[in-house]
Order: sequence, then C-alpha cells, then structure tokens
Amino acid sequence: MSQTNIGDDEVDIVIGALHADLTSFLNEWRPLFSRFHLIIVKDPDLKEELKIPEGFNLHVYTKSDIDRVVGLSSTAINFSGYSCRYFGYLVSRKKYIFSVDDDCIPAKDNKGLSVDAVDQHITNLATPATPFFFNTLYDPFCKGADFVRGYPFSLRSGVTCALSCGLWLNLADHDAPTQALKPGHRNSRYVDAVLTVPAGALMPVSGVNIAFNRELAGPALFPGLRLAAEGKLRWETVEDIWCGLCVKVICDHLGHGVKTGLPYVWRNDRGNAIESLKKEWEGVKLMEEVVPFFQSVRLSQAAVTTEDCMLEIVALVKERLAALDPVFARAAQAMADWIKLWKAVGSGSGSGSSPSNG
Amino acid sequence: MSQTNIGDDEVDIVIGALHADLTSFLNEWRPLFSRFHLIIVKDPDLKEELKIPEGFNLHVYTKSDIDRVVGLSSTAINFSGYSCRYFGYLVSRKKYIFSVDDDCIPAKDNKGLSVDAVDQHITNLATPATPFFFNTLYDPFCKGADFVRGYPFSLRSGVTCALSCGLWLNLADHDAPTQALKPGHRNSRYVDAVLTVPAGALMPVSGVNIAFNRELAGPALFPGLRLAAEGKLRWETVEDIWCGLCVKVICDHLGHGVKTGLPYVWRNDRGNAIESLKKEWEGVKLMEEVVPFFQSVRLSQAAVTTEDCMLEIVALVKERLAALDPVFARAAQAMADWIKLWKAVGSGSGSGSSPSNG
Repeated sequence: MSQTNIGDDEVDIVIGALHADLTSFLNEWRPLFSRFHLIIVKDPDLKEELKIPEGFNLHVYTKSDIDRVVGLSSTAINFSGYSCRYFGYLVSRKKYIFSVDDDCIPAKDNKGLSVDAVDQHITNLATPATPFFFNTLYDPFCKGADFVRGYPFSLRSGVTCALSCGLWLNLADHDAPTQALKPGHRNSRYVDAVLTVPAGALMPVSGVNIAFNRELAGPALFPGLRLAAEGKLRWETVEDIWCGLCVKVICDHLGHGVKTGLPYVWRNDRGNAIESLKKEWEGVKLMEEVVPFFQSVRLSQAAVTTEDCMLEIVALVKERLAALDPVFARAAQAMADWIKLWKAVGSGSGSGSSPSNG
Repeated sequence: MSQTNIGDDEVDIVIGALHADLTSFLNEWRPLFSRFHLIIVKDPDLKEELKIPEGFNLHVYTKSDIDRVVGLSSTAINFSGYSCRYFGYLVSRKKYIFSVDDDCIPAKDNKGLSVDAVDQHITNLATPATPFFFNTLYDPFCKGADFVRGYPFSLRSGVTCALSCGLWLNLADHDAPTQALKPGHRNSRYVDAVLTVPAGALMPVSGVNIAFNRELAGPALFPGLRLAAEGKLRWETVEDIWCGLCVKVICDHLGHGVKTGLPYVWRNDRGNAIESLKKEWEGVKLMEEVVPFFQSVRLSQAAVTTEDCMLEIVALVKERLAALDPVFARAAQAMADWIKLWKAVGSGSGSGSSPSNG
C-alpha cells in the first residue's frame, strides 16, 4: 500500500462466485489482486466446477465447507446467491476485507488510468472519517485535500472508518424499476471524491464494491433480509441494503465512520431488468418500512461492541417490524444466528479460538 | 436557463465590490452575466470611484444608499468589507440570488469547457434536494443521475432547495493557519458532483460562491459574527460561516434542503496568509463554541418561517453564548436587527411594501 502503513497480509479479498468461469474476471483484476490473499466462496446453488486461473494465493470455499462450519443446526441464514460472500467474511481473520461482485472489472479514471480499487479502499479505511461535521472539500485526508475554513480544529482528528463504499461506472446500481424505465442509461460520470456520510444520515449501502474493517463492521455484514423471490441479479436483492443500514446505525452509535465515493469499478451489463420487475417490487415495498424503522433505532449505552448493537437491533426488529411481514421475523432470526456464528467461528472481538479452515 | 423553467428576470447577481476596478472581473463574467440584472454593492470603506465596464444591466449601491435604507438608527450590523454584499440581498426583489467574490472568475471543467456557474446554481435550486436519506449517486436530479437501489420511493420527490454552495478551484477556501502551513497548495481537483447535505449534519458554508432562494434563505444570510480584527481577506472573516449554520439549522427545521458541490469558480491568489494568522486565530477559537452551539439548537413548532426561526436562535445565542464572548452578544443583536430591517425594507415573506430602491 503506497499511502498507508497497512501490510498486504492484513487484507483479504472476498469474492462470491455466482459464475463458474472466473478466468476473465480474475485476469482483469490480476495486477491488483496478485499480492493479496483471496477468499472465493462458491454460490452453493452453482453446480459446475469453478474455473480459476493460476497464479493467485487463494482459498476456495464450497457448500461442504459452509455445511461444516455452519453445521447442520437450523439457521435462518441462507448463503446462496450473492449471500455466499458473507461466508468469506465469517472465516477471514484479516483486519480489512475488500469484496467485489464477479461481474465487475477495474475502472479507468478521468485521465484513462486504471483505478487501483484495493489501494483506494484501504486508504479510505486507514485514514480517519469525519462524521460529526461536513467538510465541503470532501474527504480531507485524500491527497491534495484539507479542511475548509470554519471546520473546528477539535474535530479534525476524525474517527476510525469502519466501512468504505465504492461506486460503479457503466451499469449503476439502480433498482429494477429504474433500470427498466431507462434501459439504455449508463453511468459515465466519474466523481473524483470520497466523503464521510454524516452521523445521523442513513444511506443505501450497495454490496457490489465495498471494503471494511472486519472487527468493526463484520458482525453487521450478513445476509439477513432475503426476498421471497430473490434472484441472481443485484436488483433482485436487498440483503446488502439491510445490513448497510445496520452498519450505519451502529457506526453512528459507536462513533465510527462510513465513507462513500471512490473507488469506482466497471460493472458489466447482465440480466433483463424488465423480467426482474415483478420480484423487485417486493424489495421496493419493504424499503418503505425498513428506512423509517432504522431512522427510529436508538441503541443503549450498554451496547459497546458491534455484536451488542446487533442484538439490540434484533429485539427492535422483532418488536416493531416482525408483525408487518414474515420477512422481517426471518431477518431478525438471521441476525441473531449470525452473531452466534460470528462468535462461535472465532471472529468475535477478542475471541481467541482458531478458525475452522486452513 | 436551459434545464429549468426559471426566467432570467427571477435572478439577481449580487457582487460586493471590495476593489474599485471591476473591469477585468466583469469582463471575465460577461458571457454569463450579461442577460441578468446585477446588484453591485460598494464596500463602504472603499474610497475610490468604481470602474465598471459598459454593457451590463446593473444597479450600484454605495454608502449613501446603505445609510438611507438602514437609516441612522443604531444597528449592530456593519456592512463594510465582505459584508457589503448582504445589503444587496436586502434590497433585491428576485426569487433567486447568486453571489460571488470579486476575486473569482469562471472556472473550466475537466474537459476544459467554461463552467456556467449561474446556470448550475439555478439548476441546483430549481430541482429538489434530498436531505432525509443520502443518495450515494449524488444529486439524483443532475443530468444522467438517478436514485440508487434501496432509496425509498416515498422520499424521491425531495424538498425545496434553499441554498446552493459552490466550490473553488486554484485557491481553496481554507483558514489562514491551513493556508499558511501550505502556502503553495492549490486545489486542482474538479469533483463533478452536487449533493444534498443530509438533515442534521452541519457544515461551514462559504460565502465565496453561493446562490439561494431569497425568501427561504435570505432572512438568515446577514453579517452577524464580525471578528474584532476582521480584514479584507476571506480567511480573516467568519460571518458567512455563522449565517451558513443559521441557514442549515433552519432548513433542517423547516424541511428545506442545502446542496453543495458544483459549480466551481476559479479563485485568484490574494493576500498573505501568514500576516493574517494573528487575526484568524480569533475566528478559529470561536468555532469551538459556535459549532457545538448550533448542534444543540432545537427550534419550536411555532417557528414556521425563516424569520421566526432566526428570532428563536437570537434568544438561544443570548442565553448560551453571549456570556462567553462579547462577539456573540453583538451577533445576536445583529440577527435581531437584520430581521427588523428585512421586514421593514419589505423583503419579508408576504410583505407587500415596495423596495426603497429603483
């Protein structure tokens, strides 16, 4: 890492494999990924053998690993589809995780130079976030940036950044109705900025291109809100939105930060939004309940770790949302199960037990 | 206006003239300003005659106009220096105002094209703001942008934007200590984005390059916090920071929005930051009291106009800040005087009295 003191061995790159042939995906990322350890988690629904090019330092996890670690005990967590990546978050032991969808490749910046998404995410995480006052000059810790006149000096040291959300060129991360309304629409706007999302403001986190501090954010990044007709296209999922809201509410409570903006990745086209419309309406409708709920969440002073906070949110989901739709009761159960798993597998803060994988 | 239905006659451009020779400034802006009405307010401290090139539709206000309108009654408001522009806000009768410092010229974008700052500001103001949920794809009402997956449909209509804060290329708007520490530092990062600052988040508004809805924001844009050694350089002022905090707190209360980002202007170098350091420390120290104060402000449900809100803030400043430093007692008095003036001069909401100027 050029701009930070983070060692390559403090980072895991986690890929959920929804496609069997990862050859072109990994070859595109080779210049950026080759010096890191990769965790590839195969979608348990995928029947074909994975095709993985040589020359990477990686560990592949499949359905049998999931069954072994998670056990045959009943759990509300389903690791199929996009959710398989979360298994990688569970078994990683690194400080930082970067995860990107397998239909994305490195983007080019405004000058046509290839974007080093890993380096940018790690810089975002390794430099402070500033959630308590908005800096109009964007992330003051970016190269060439600083605080604007009027920014209190006492707030300039910032806080630890727990989550870095990257963006997308070409196919933006819209929902199916938006994509269906504008089938030809592509995002070509490269916004050269990183910013801290202010404390108290919620946002829809997309799991397409994110990185995070595993100890601080990992317990809240889990597949919880699963649509009845969830599919294998991003606009047919909301699990990442739900856990993003958990992370943001928890960061606001614990005094950590969330950044959004750079790095971009290039998302290739895939799927037919119009065919997804029927499924997607379920997700769109749920958001009308989900957002006001998270805006109302207040955590207690007794909640001092992400795990504590998650368990308080579980109770609130059961109390305020579960009666509205069975999908919320299942989400609450999945959250509780995730925290149990996170502690059992040894990912919990201060846990000393060894991981069950090599 | 290309992208909106705003007529040219709904906009005043207000320039505070701190320099007598406006020839090159106005000639640089001619392509953008020529179809609008300009209000030029001469700094009452400036002795020389103004030099203004021909071909503009404009009205010049000088010390004698200020004395006539404001009267000889005692007022805590001082319109000298950068504060002269606020007199233009008072006498304007237009829906929107754009104001820019007289050491700024039009900027060029990433492609080398001249930025139409007026058009961008008016677009920002004429399209909705989205303060109640953060859109990671920036202002969804910008051309080519939209809402990200997970953004609740019920929040997509947004709210009225009251204030648009533009940014600066070349000389960024730092305080004197930052500028003195990095004398060679210049801002070359063109961030191609507009965003709504979320409700609840405060920010240091800079008056260098702003536009606003006069009825919604005007009563809160006044010269109130004047440093003992305020000078004629931006980093020697904090009056814009103070009124920006008023505007943001009031917008959050009344359900209006504040946007920041595009358009950029090019700021020319001027002044010696090291010589300003002594003066500036006063402003820097005050911010340590000012920001927590505004973060603590809660307005009552009885406050339904910007004027109402301002008067409630006056009472809170007297109660919580005035004892700390006489500068705050004077600021409170200036706020109260401003609201009196605003109503008397006929700028108040629903006021029917005619302005005292042509």
